[in-house]
Amino acid sequence: MFQINENYLKLPGSYLFSTIGKKVSAFTAANPDKKIIRLGIGDVTLPLAPAVIEAMHKAVDEMGNADTFHGYAPDLGYEFLRTAIVENDYKARGVDISIDEIFVSDGAKSDSGNIGEIFGDNNRIAVCDPVYPVYVDSNVMAGRTGEYIADKERWSNVIYMPCTADNNFSPELPKETPDMIYLCFPNNPTGSTITKAELQKWVDYAIKVGAVIIYDAAYEAYISEEDVPHSIYECKDAKSCAIELRSFSKNAGFTGTRLGFTVVPKELKCGDVSLNALWARRHGTKFNGAPYIIQRAGEAVYSEAGKAQTKEQIAYYMNNAKIIREGLLGAGFEAFGGVNAPYIWLKTPDKMTSWEFFDYLLEKVNIVGTPGSGFGPSGEGYFRLTAFGSYENTLAAIERIKNI
Amino acid sequence: MFQINENYLKLPGSYLFSTIGKKVSAFTAANPDKKIIRLGIGDVTLPLAPAVIEAMHKAVDEMGNADTFHGYAPDLGYEFLRTAIVENDYKARGVDISIDEIFVSDGAKSDSGNIGEIFGDNNRIAVCDPVYPVYVDSNVMAGRTGEYIADKERWSNVIYMPCTADNNFSPELPKETPDMIYLCFPNNPTGSTITKAELQKWVDYAIKVGAVIIYDAAYEAYISEEDVPHSIYECKDAKSCAIELRSFSKNAGFTGTRLGFTVVPKELKCGDVSLNALWARRHGTKFNGAPYIIQRAGEAVYSEAGKAQTKEQIAYYMNNAKIIREGLLGAGFEAFGGVNAPYIWLKTPDKMTSWEFFDYLLEKVNIVGTPGSGFGPSGEGYFRLTAFGSYENTLAAIERIKNI
Repeated sequence: MFQINENYLKLPGSYLFSTIGKKVSAFTAANPDKKIIRLGIGDVTLPLAPAVIEAMHKAVDEMGNADTFHGYAPDLGYEFLRTAIVENDYKARGVDISIDEIFVSDGAKSDSGNIGEIFGDNNRIAVCDPVYPVYVDSNVMAGRTGEYIADKERWSNVIYMPCTADNNFSPELPKETPDMIYLCFPNNPTGSTITKAELQKWVDYAIKVGAVIIYDAAYEAYISEEDVPHSIYECKDAKSCAIELRSFSKNAGFTGTRLGFTVVPKELKCGDVSLNALWARRHGTKFNGAPYIIQRAGEAVYSEAGKAQTKEQIAYYMNNAKIIREGLLGAGFEAFGGVNAPYIWLKTPDKMTSWEFFDYLLEKVNIVGTPGSGFGPSGEGYFRLTAFGSYENTLAAIERIKNI
Repeated sequence: MFQINENYLKLPGSYLFSTIGKKVSAFTAANPDKKIIRLGIGDVTLPLAPAVIEAMHKAVDEMGNADTFHGYAPDLGYEFLRTAIVENDYKARGVDISIDEIFVSDGAKSDSGNIGEIFGDNNRIAVCDPVYPVYVDSNVMAGRTGEYIADKERWSNVIYMPCTADNNFSPELPKETPDMIYLCFPNNPTGSTITKAELQKWVDYAIKVGAVIIYDAAYEAYISEEDVPHSIYECKDAKSCAIELRSFSKNAGFTGTRLGFTVVPKELKCGDVSLNALWARRHGTKFNGAPYIIQRAGEAVYSEAGKAQTKEQIAYYMNNAKIIREGLLGAGFEAFGGVNAPYIWLKTPDKMTSWEFFDYLLEKVNIVGTPGSGFGPSGEGYFRLTAFGSYENTLAAIERIKNI
């Protein structure tokens, strides 16, 4: 008799954003006349940049012609894209990454969920708390997290690194020694960042204790301050201890277009075993490449026009972030983030729980945000708003919140 | 100190098609003047159908406009696509599958590799031998296969079901009881099929022993004979024991466009646990949908024009298959398949091993095929040619082989 992966049964409830989606659907069905403003799930709203659209039309035409048709892509992704990535995201910042250390994928969510597969099941993970739920959930599925302690809302074998207003949302080095450390900066959900000097401490720590860092830099394009690193490889020796995840979802609006990449440096080893070779094997066996058309779209993000156009999009969202941040502060909320990230993290008023405030905002002013507790136990009592709405909706939402 | 997934170290050599790619690259570099004909990897060569191209242009335009832009897709895939799948692939054949049993993905390779994640690590797998390498390799990575016995070229804990000329490439029910049974019909690599009555025996057997069948129907569009089922759900009670994998790669030339889907019926349970719910959770946590543009492309495959155009493509490839099959038989080879599948499976001449014949064909007549032994121990002494080349190249390849 076949058996299921029992670890799945440990997962409480469903994936955070699925739950939100269902709540919003139910509310909309019951209140068809209400105009909901969605500042919840981190989904973008601006259309793709003209340079990207143009590149895709061209690639679609190529796919319609026998002479220029493209079948299976190279395992790691097309060289034209990996070269553009290396030149623009790394070389331009003085970081030396080679094209065979870049693995093009269908997005950072898949990669952050799948990367655990090349690691042993007994590794102990450390995560920022709160944090993007996929890190923990995918490790639950792999059996690394121990048991769920419902009354504490935490897993018995996960090292939580609290990020709260008390430590300015910057985690301290853990007291217990982890094997795998998930870091995400600029942080989702708190919008906090880390300076290069602070990140260097994590790199040094990981090397000292023999841990690997999974560094999620999906929001690096939103960094506005000088001393905040865009890549962990800006830190000395990071190539010997860190994997970096990158996404086109937020820097170029590819949430529905699907493209990302993971950097696994050749220097990163466990004994004699190269993690680059392991991920190459995983990538070659359980994945078959991002679509040619989408890889061409990704290349266009790095063209001169593409860079200018996506920079404008980011400026647009960061203006929204400023409106939300300043609006909330002006209305008496405690609000954080929104300077180097499209996320604003606020303390719920009147000691409401995160989900109470979610329901309150949805029902009273028809605004969808994300409950902080969905990102981890230390997120309880916080709430996330995103800057990815339209300017008009963002303004309207802040007016509604001010008038509660 | 972090540990790697040690199962990866058990994998001998690299993924079959990566090895072939490297051998061909080396040969091409050393012999730049030789015109290689590739009948190896199962990659298509015809451009995408006009209806698909048109749908993608339209979708690209939608992505460039704020009013019609699409961000994150629904977890299971867009309803327009799942509805088209249900209507055309199932309802039209008298099979009742609902749209929430369809999970749209980036292709059957990913799904066939990932589906194992929802099953326990102690399940014992049974595979046709020879077979598409991803089934075994992904289970090696999960630790289900035991140790590799090099001199027997097999895994200690895998139940191999030999498919050779002796049994007309149709596996017999295994003597040892498996928990998970991988079946692929029309078969890759042998091109063999199974009748509905024969498949019903597998369904009945799976139910009797409590096994789950992972049914890979990626090549169903190539079926030309009446009594060969296109879906396992044409068999009675199959919804209580089988998951079905489908692909757009071969029926519509999407190898470089990436789209597939998996059917997990709600009736399929392990005790009280619905596998549909488990796969939904996996899908929602570790995947973020196929691109909107590509899902629209998939929808167009089911339009009247799309159906007519992709049918023509399949007829084109099946004409190639006929040329290869008849050419090989005429030249004195023992050849199989090519009637309900785009694959022709031949016995190597002069007792050559599969890789010897690979090198021989590459060096003597500059034709790339796939060594049968790469698909499993019972594939030794066989060789796969595919019908996915151009008509002209297929004719030329057969002429070259005839004149060896």
